[in-house]
Amino acid sequence: MLKNFTGLPSKEKLDAFKGIDILGAPQFTKETLETVMNTAAYYEEKLIAQERLYDMDGKVMAALFFEPSTRTRLSFETAMLRLGGQVITVAEAAGAQISSASKGETLHDTMVINDGYADVIVCRSPQTGAAQIAADAAKIPVINAGDGAGQHPSQALLDIYTIIKEKGSPDGLTVAMIGDLKYGRTVHSLVDFLAMYKCKVVMASPEILAMPKDIVAKMETKGVKIEYRDNIMDAVKDADVIYMTRVQRERFEDINEYNAVKDMFIMDGEVVKNFKKDAIIMHPLPRINEITIDVDEYPGAAYFRQARNGLPVRMAMLALVCGVVGKGQK
Amino acid sequence: MLKNFTGLPSKEKLDAFKGIDILGAPQFTKETLETVMNTAAYYEEKLIAQERLYDMDGKVMAALFFEPSTRTRLSFETAMLRLGGQVITVAEAAGAQISSASKGETLHDTMVINDGYADVIVCRSPQTGAAQIAADAAKIPVINAGDGAGQHPSQALLDIYTIIKEKGSPDGLTVAMIGDLKYGRTVHSLVDFLAMYKCKVVMASPEILAMPKDIVAKMETKGVKIEYRDNIMDAVKDADVIYMTRVQRERFEDINEYNAVKDMFIMDGEVVKNFKKDAIIMHPLPRINEITIDVDEYPGAAYFRQARNGLPVRMAMLALVCGVVGKGQK
Amino acid sequence: MLKNFTGLPSKEKLDAFKGIDILGAPQFTKETLETVMNTAAYYEEKLIAQERLYDMDGKVMAALFFEPSTRTRLSFETAMLRLGGQVITVAEAAGAQISSASKGETLHDTMVINDGYADVIVCRSPQTGAAQIAADAAKIPVINAGDGAGQHPSQALLDIYTIIKEKGSPDGLTVAMIGDLKYGRTVHSLVDFLAMYKCKVVMASPEILAMPKDIVAKMETKGVKIEYRDNIMDAVKDADVIYMTRVQRERFEDINEYNAVKDMFIMDGEVVKNFKKDAIIMHPLPRINEITIDVDEYPGAAYFRQARNGLPVRMAMLALVCGVVGKGQK
Repeated sequence: MLKNFTGLPSKEKLDAFKGIDILGAPQFTKETLETVMNTAAYYEEKLIAQERLYDMDGKVMAALFFEPSTRTRLSFETAMLRLGGQVITVAEAAGAQISSASKGETLHDTMVINDGYADVIVCRSPQTGAAQIAADAAKIPVINAGDGAGQHPSQALLDIYTIIKEKGSPDGLTVAMIGDLKYGRTVHSLVDFLAMYKCKVVMASPEILAMPKDIVAKMETKGVKIEYRDNIMDAVKDADVIYMTRVQRERFEDINEYNAVKDMFIMDGEVVKNFKKDAIIMHPLPRINEITIDVDEYPGAAYFRQARNGLPVRMAMLALVCGVVGKGQK
Repeated sequence: MLKNFTGLPSKEKLDAFKGIDILGAPQFTKETLETVMNTAAYYEEKLIAQERLYDMDGKVMAALFFEPSTRTRLSFETAMLRLGGQVITVAEAAGAQISSASKGETLHDTMVINDGYADVIVCRSPQTGAAQIAADAAKIPVINAGDGAGQHPSQALLDIYTIIKEKGSPDGLTVAMIGDLKYGRTVHSLVDFLAMYKCKVVMASPEILAMPKDIVAKMETKGVKIEYRDNIMDAVKDADVIYMTRVQRERFEDINEYNAVKDMFIMDGEVVKNFKKDAIIMHPLPRINEITIDVDEYPGAAYFRQARNGLPVRMAMLALVCGVVGKGQK
Repeated sequence: MLKNFTGLPSKEKLDAFKGIDILGAPQFTKETLETVMNTAAYYEEKLIAQERLYDMDGKVMAALFFEPSTRTRLSFETAMLRLGGQVITVAEAAGAQISSASKGETLHDTMVINDGYADVIVCRSPQTGAAQIAADAAKIPVINAGDGAGQHPSQALLDIYTIIKEKGSPDGLTVAMIGDLKYGRTVHSLVDFLAMYKCKVVMASPEILAMPKDIVAKMETKGVKIEYRDNIMDAVKDADVIYMTRVQRERFEDINEYNAVKDMFIMDGEVVKNFKKDAIIMHPLPRINEITIDVDEYPGAAYFRQARNGLPVRMAMLALVCGVVGKGQK
C-alpha cells in the first residue's frame, strides 16, 4: 500500500460519491476529501503495477473543453483510458468561437444533449459559473475542469494529494505560498483543504497581489495560523511545503512597481540553500522563470511529480462519480 | 421490444446494407428506411439495457469533419464507441484551411488514403456534393454527415425515427412545418421520408421562406396532402407533429420585412395551449429564440429526445454499412 | 508470408528496439532497418488477415502534433488503435499558438509531464531539433513525426518499405529522384537508406534545386553510383523506381527562372510511355499537379499504396519501441 494512505475506502464511502458532480473545493468535507485521496492512492498503486483496468469498460467520458487547457484535458482523457473507458472530445482553440455556440446554442442545451451521449462530462469553460450551469442541465455527473475565475477542483485535489504523498498528513506542516496570491486560483482552493488540518500558512507576495482579505478571514475562522513575510528567503526558511506561483507583468498598472518586485519571488539555487531539510517545492505549471532550471535537480523539486499525480487523482474522481471503483477487477 | 418497432430485421435485409454508402434521404425506399428504423430501435434497447457491445470490436471509424459540427461529430463518435469500435478524427475549426488541403490535397486523394486506414468514413464538408466525391474515391463505406446545401441523412433518419417512436407509424399523421422552409435542409429531407406514408403536411412560413415549388410538386406527385397556413396558431391546431425551424434575419434583404414576420413563428406557452392532445414539437437544434425556454416543460417538447435519438440511429447506420449488426454478441 | 520479406525478426533483434527513440534515418543500420521492415511486413499480414490485435492493449500513445499534419497523425493514431492501444491527441491548427506553450511552457516541461501519462510519444513540431529535446526530456520512447527541416523517419521507412515490397531488395535497382532535391526532406532520408544497398541514383532537378553537395558526397563515399539528367524523359528511361517531388514556385526568386523549368518535371501519360517495364512511381503526397490524374491508372503508380504502407510501418515502429511485437497474441 502507498505510504501515507489508508487503502481503498469502505463501500459506503465510495457509494456516497456515485452520481454527484464535482464542482469545487468548497463542497468537500475532510471525510469526502480523504475518500478521494485514498481512492487516488489505490489507482496509483494499480498504475505502478501496470495493471490493465476495466472499471470504466463500455463507458464514455465527454471532455468538453471550451477553452484550451491541453495538460488538464490530456490528463483527464488518459485517466479515462487507463480505467478502460473511452473518450469523446471538444477541444476549442484559443479565441475560437464556442462550437455549436457559434450557432447560438446555449451551454444548457449543449449539456442536455451531451447528457444523452456520455456517462460523465468533464467541462472546461472561460466563463465563471459554467460548471454549475452544466451540472444543472445534465443528469449524468459533471466534473468541473476549471471555469474562469471560479473553481478547478482536480488541480486542488492533486495539490493536496501531492502534499500528503510527499509529507504525510498536513497536520503540523508549515506551507509557504509565494508569488501571486490574489489571482492564483490554485492557492485559493488549496487553502480550503489546508483549513481542514492543523497547519500554518506563510505568505509572501507583492502587496498588490496579496491573498484576498475574505479568504484570509475564512482561514482564520477555521483556525489556520497565518504569517506574512516580506521576501522569499524569509518565507521558505521554516516551510515544509513551498507553493510557488508566477508574478505576471500584466497584473501591474505601473511598470516601475513591477520592476521593483519582479525578482523578489524567484526560486533559484540560492533560495533552495535556505530550505529546511526535506522541504518540497510545488507549482501548478507551466512555469516561466519563477523557478530556475537548476532547481529541477533538487530532490524536493516536486512540481513534475505533482503534475503526474493528476493522473491517479483524476482516475479517482471519474471512477467515484461513476460508481465503478474496483468494479472492473477480474 | 421498443413500442412501434418490429424487432431486428431479417439477415437478408441487414446484408443488403453491407458496404453501401449512405449519402442522402433520396436513396431510401420504404423498406430500407424501415430496416434502419428497426435496427436503430434494436440498438436503443441495448443502450437502455446498458449492454456492452462488441459489434465493431477492432474496427476504426474515420470522422472527417472539414467544417465544425460538434453535435453531429460527437454523436457519430459516441455511436462508434458504444458499438465497441474506435475513432480517428479530423475536426476543422471554423474558417480553418482544410488540413492537408492547405497543401493542396484534393478531397479525392484524401479519401483514397483514408480508405487505407479505416473501416468506415463519416464525412462532413461545407461543399455540396463532397460526399459523392468521397464515396467515389473510397472503397470502404462513406456516410454523409452533411455536405453544404446537400444532404444530411443521419438528421433526416433521426427525425423520422423520432416521429415513429413518439407517434407510431406516420400513416394518418398531420405534420406541421413552421418557419424557414426554403433553406432548411432538414425539412426537405424529412418530406422525402414522409412521402412514403399517407400523411398530411401543413406549412406556415414567411412568404419568401416558403417550401421550394419543385419539392412541393414532388410531394404532391407522391400523394402527400399539403395545406398552407398564415400563422403559427392556425398551423399547430390540428397537427400531431410540429417541426420548428428558425427564421433567420440574414435571409431578409429588407429589415422591415423581417421585423414584420419575426414574431409570427415563435413557439411559446401560448401556442402550446392551442395544441391537439399529445402533439409533439421537434426542432433540429440548436434553437435560439424560436422556442421559448418555458416550452421545455411541456411533455410533448420532443427536441432533446430527438437529439438523443441520433445515437441509436447513427449506431444503426454504422453497423449496417459495416455489416456487423449483432455480430459482437457473446 | 509477404513476398520480399523474411518473417518476424528474432527475439534478440526485436528486444534491441525496446525503449529506444526513433528520431531519424541516420540512426539506422542495415540490420535495424531490416528489423523494422520485417516487423512491418508481419503487421501487414495481420491487417490483410483482419486479425484483431492486442499487442498494445492497455497502453496509451500521446500524439503531440504542434503543427498540422493530418495524414501522418491519422496514420499513427490508426496504427496504435489497430494494435489494440489507445490514443490521446494534441492537434494544433495551422498558425495556432502552441497549446500550453501559449502560457510559455517549454517543450522540455511539456514532455516531462506527458511522460507521466503515456507509454509512447509521437511528436511533430515545426522546430528543427524538437524531437531530440523531447527525447531527452521523456523517459518513455519518443518517435519523431517530423521536426521542421530535420528528420521524418516514419516517411523514410515507409518509402524504403514500399521499394522493397514492390521491387524486392534495393540491391541493383536504379532509383530516379525528380523535382526539388534541395528542400525535399523525404529524398534526403531515403538516400540514407539506399546507401545501405548497391543501387544507382539518377537525379533530375532544376539547377537551383539540386541535391545538396554534402549529401551527394556522403552518398558517393558509401559507394552509391550517381548520375545526373537534364530532363524527366531521360531520367525515367532506365529507372526501376521514380521518386517524384514538387517544384514549388516559392523556391524561386526569379519568376522567369521558375517559368522556364516548371513544366520540365511533370509526370504525365507521355512520360510513363518512356518507362522501363514494371517501373514504379512514388510520391510523398499530397501532390498538386506534378503527377497528372491520368497517371493514377498506370499499374506502377504506387503513391497511394505507398501512403497506405504508412500503417503497417508505423505499427511496427510503435510496437518495437514499446517492446510488444506479438505480445498480444492469444
